[in-house]
Amino acid sequence: MTLHTDALRDHACLIVHGPDQPGLVASVTALVTRNAGNIVTLDQYSDNPAGGAFFQRVVFHRPDLQAAMPDIEADLAVTLEPYRMQWRLTDLSIPKRMAILASTSDHCLLELLWRHRRGELPVTIPMVISNHTNTAEDVRAFGIPFFHVPSHGTDKTAAEAKIAQLLAGNVDFVVLARYMQILSDDFLEQVGVPMINIHHSFLPAFIGAAPYRKAKERGVKLIGATSHYVTKDLDEGPIIEQDVARVDHTMTAADLQARGAYVERAVLARAVQWHAEDRIIRHGNHTIVFQ
Amino acid sequence: MTLHTDALRDHACLIVHGPDQPGLVASVTALVTRNAGNIVTLDQYSDNPAGGAFFQRVVFHRPDLQAAMPDIEADLAVTLEPYRMQWRLTDLSIPKRMAILASTSDHCLLELLWRHRRGELPVTIPMVISNHTNTAEDVRAFGIPFFHVPSHGTDKTAAEAKIAQLLAGNVDFVVLARYMQILSDDFLEQVGVPMINIHHSFLPAFIGAAPYRKAKERGVKLIGATSHYVTKDLDEGPIIEQDVARVDHTMTAADLQARGAYVERAVLARAVQWHAEDRIIRHGNHTIVFQ
Amino acid sequence: MTLHTDALRDHACLIVHGPDQPGLVASVTALVTRNAGNIVTLDQYSDNPAGGAFFQRVVFHRPDLQAAMPDIEADLAVTLEPYRMQWRLTDLSIPKRMAILASTSDHCLLELLWRHRRGELPVTIPMVISNHTNTAEDVRAFGIPFFHVPSHGTDKTAAEAKIAQLLAGNVDFVVLARYMQILSDDFLEQVGVPMINIHHSFLPAFIGAAPYRKAKERGVKLIGATSHYVTKDLDEGPIIEQDVARVDHTMTAADLQARGAYVERAVLARAVQWHAEDRIIRHGNHTIVFQ
Amino acid sequence: MTLHTDALRDHACLIVHGPDQPGLVASVTALVTRNAGNIVTLDQYSDNPAGGAFFQRVVFHRPDLQAAMPDIEADLAVTLEPYRMQWRLTDLSIPKRMAILASTSDHCLLELLWRHRRGELPVTIPMVISNHTNTAEDVRAFGIPFFHVPSHGTDKTAAEAKIAQLLAGNVDFVVLARYMQILSDDFLEQVGVPMINIHHSFLPAFIGAAPYRKAKERGVKLIGATSHYVTKDLDEGPIIEQDVARVDHTMTAADLQARGAYVERAVLARAVQWHAEDRIIRHGNHTIVFQ
Repeated sequence: MTLHTDALRDHACLIVHGPDQPGLVASVTALVTRNAGNIVTLDQYSDNPAGGAFFQRVVFHRPDLQAAMPDIEADLAVTLEPYRMQWRLTDLSIPKRMAILASTSDHCLLELLWRHRRGELPVTIPMVISNHTNTAEDVRAFGIPFFHVPSHGTDKTAAEAKIAQLLAGNVDFVVLARYMQILSDDFLEQVGVPMINIHHSFLPAFIGAAPYRKAKERGVKLIGATSHYVTKDLDEGPIIEQDVARVDHTMTAADLQARGAYVERAVLARAVQWHAEDRIIRHGNHTIVFQ
Repeated sequence: MTLHTDALRDHACLIVHGPDQPGLVASVTALVTRNAGNIVTLDQYSDNPAGGAFFQRVVFHRPDLQAAMPDIEADLAVTLEPYRMQWRLTDLSIPKRMAILASTSDHCLLELLWRHRRGELPVTIPMVISNHTNTAEDVRAFGIPFFHVPSHGTDKTAAEAKIAQLLAGNVDFVVLARYMQILSDDFLEQVGVPMINIHHSFLPAFIGAAPYRKAKERGVKLIGATSHYVTKDLDEGPIIEQDVARVDHTMTAADLQARGAYVERAVLARAVQWHAEDRIIRHGNHTIVFQ
Repeated sequence: MTLHTDALRDHACLIVHGPDQPGLVASVTALVTRNAGNIVTLDQYSDNPAGGAFFQRVVFHRPDLQAAMPDIEADLAVTLEPYRMQWRLTDLSIPKRMAILASTSDHCLLELLWRHRRGELPVTIPMVISNHTNTAEDVRAFGIPFFHVPSHGTDKTAAEAKIAQLLAGNVDFVVLARYMQILSDDFLEQVGVPMINIHHSFLPAFIGAAPYRKAKERGVKLIGATSHYVTKDLDEGPIIEQDVARVDHTMTAADLQARGAYVERAVLARAVQWHAEDRIIRHGNHTIVFQ
Repeated sequence: MTLHTDALRDHACLIVHGPDQPGLVASVTALVTRNAGNIVTLDQYSDNPAGGAFFQRVVFHRPDLQAAMPDIEADLAVTLEPYRMQWRLTDLSIPKRMAILASTSDHCLLELLWRHRRGELPVTIPMVISNHTNTAEDVRAFGIPFFHVPSHGTDKTAAEAKIAQLLAGNVDFVVLARYMQILSDDFLEQVGVPMINIHHSFLPAFIGAAPYRKAKERGVKLIGATSHYVTKDLDEGPIIEQDVARVDHTMTAADLQARGAYVERAVLARAVQWHAEDRIIRHGNHTIVFQ
């Protein structure tokens, strides 16, 4: 079920994860109840009931949530301390702030802007940054600020520094909407918020550059796209979502790329929506996605 | 996650549904905990948090479950009484008993028998009943009893009486695996257990007989199949599962039927599995399916 | 294979259909060869080799096509006369002129404009006509003329007359991109070019108004969309393309509508592309689509 | 369109491929016509109209085909000689002879036997060979000979020799239906007929052993299967067909394997059907599939 920000007043999302132990679900649900919350959805998963890892997402309605947040957080700290669980509590009526990095391709970028305008992505978009200028007019027509940060030559230090400066303090996560630059480890650390990428193949197939050309050469009958969190290992981060489209022998590598663009924009949009709705928990190199 | 009966020792499934009220989830989870249960999965859904209907499915592990069942049931009766909820508690290690009714077509019938043999359907199959004999040898090769109950002429009373007699007391639910006879209301009442049917169209399109011929006449580009609970209103019962396959102008009605058989067997198998695993709650003419 | 207009210089598309007879394929291919054409793709279909209907689509390259068109057409008239076949020959490098009629919803409209801008739809778009003004700015940002023709009250005669006047002589086909007005038979006759509609259900299910509400009421597990040619019988015209998306019990009718919008835009875009590329032959209430 | 052998009396399939040249399609269709053939389907593809490779498949009906075959073949040799084309002409009413090699898994094996019994695979099955005995009874229940050739230890020479002896002269192609032995180059050469394998991943991802375990480790959201022709390079042969199924974080590697079995059997069955119907042309490491 899609939850829109305008319907989310006084709704909180609680994420809990850590070592699985008996009684966890009962403890958490009792905590919500004694803090005057009414559970709207509850998902939980244990990767091994005998000593594995436990993951839970609870959405609850609580009148006057903002005023009650400190009390609920204090209760959580006390209640979950003996279980050694990690947790985070968010007010779902406060949209996350999402920056988009793009290059010349517009299909992923415009899809996100357009879904946002329809009210389907519970985020604000403080800025789009591109190393090209061709999408500036389109972006600004959506009422979104556009910044051009060119990436000349092989030394990306200056460009990354400028991007990091624009992002600093202004965003909760970053989306690489076919941003065709490899980012340095330093940059990732400096930005310090989650980054979501879209890769134009069904990873781990055709890792690296030119996946549609490689797909044509291998003669596959399906092409795909993968959205994943960015880590220091290129194309190796935790996968959030994937999908494929059928192709055949008549299609050139350019045809695969054109067809693939529609898979890419759909896969990225779903991944962004789930992240924005706090549905994803990262665990090692995996994702738990509570849909 | 597919749960197999051999891994389900001491696992209980609790289904609760009724008017949505604050505190329900906490009450149920507390009850499980105080009865020494450890929650393995929990799904819940409310069709309207403000005064709607509430549905919950909890699977929990409880050592020595059989011995504890009466105490847990007594606790449930007391705990849920003020909420006016319906509930049912089942021991997931006890497979449901499933009868299959079939006619000449073997694709749905054999798919169920074969999945059962692979250990993927947590049921026992005490009998297959058919109004034809062509599948007898195949069925018995799976070690399943086969009964032939012919359906001659327009008076089906005698045949239905014989079938009802075979089923009485021996089965927990019945699957109509392309059983091509219309069942009387009296028969449904007499049998008194859930019945699952597979209809060879994406209902409500092409309701009634000869859906593939109708699909060809209408020139659709997708054909489908629908599994639903049987009610007195033909093809109108609560839908459990549906799927489709792509077709094109070159295919005859016979081609559609051949292609559709693969959709039918997959859709029916999923519906049967979900029913066998107690994942479905009926509500009015709808189903809540906790996957 | 997607053919783009810029790569289509000197490419002709020949459509032939009529009663199936031996030697037809050889006659047509010989004609192409003796007119200095080289066949690029050839598709053909007979709905019954013994006395059925025959359909053929041939794309061929012919240097200096424009100059040769009259000679080829004269040859076709002579060659196909004894077979009593219908045929049409088009220069694929000349894009068809497509008008779009829309209402408040923008998802189908913008998808078509955006695919056109990417060079994926081999059409020109001389105008968008809407009975609302909300999409005017978006449309004009694509460099496309926008005309507002309100549809007040129950008498649509004046509005239809104005639309017909705008279209007259300027378009080769019309797309109803969620245009929420029922069109009169007189209007269809007056416009006199093919019209393509997108219906928001997998026809023939949920025919008529409010299909997503009906889908929710019936409890289906798939929703769909259907693109079809417009005829005098509402929602009964020849189906061009259909697709579906999976839904579940948690989704409201509004959720189904939001999810369905993505199916609608994809289905309509495919249908429009196939029509623009002359891949569709209408036959009775069916379509032959040569993909 | 599925063509069944009983409807294929006097139907020939002509495959032509080689360097693309103007007039090829006209030459071939004229040849069919002057040999009293009526074209039923015609597919053709050129990977580059300017000097690329050309592929054509023509199915035609010709009364008394058997008697006319030598004349048609002589005409083909003369007609296509100046074009330097490869060609093969087959009588579609003569089913190909297909051997199946299997191990303990029965899902691919039984699917092929069952589709064959339904009349959906235009082949005869002279034998099933397995290195295990568990499926013997099932195979023989279909009326198909079963041979047990154990594969003990690391020296497979003796086993391969025995299999080659069984196959010699008796089969037109071989299907590896989850046959879990690596075949030597010598064996492939000795057998000398096409071999079709099913790999349990969406190649080229998870090449080699244990793909479901690798898929779980990587955290993919789709699993797949690939059917390909066997070459000396393991898992590197020309891909015939692929498909995928959606999975999620709750599924173990064993769950992926169980889910994947349904993708495997469907993908292999389609590949086998296309090969049996002479719809596939191999070209380098690619396949042209005329569906």
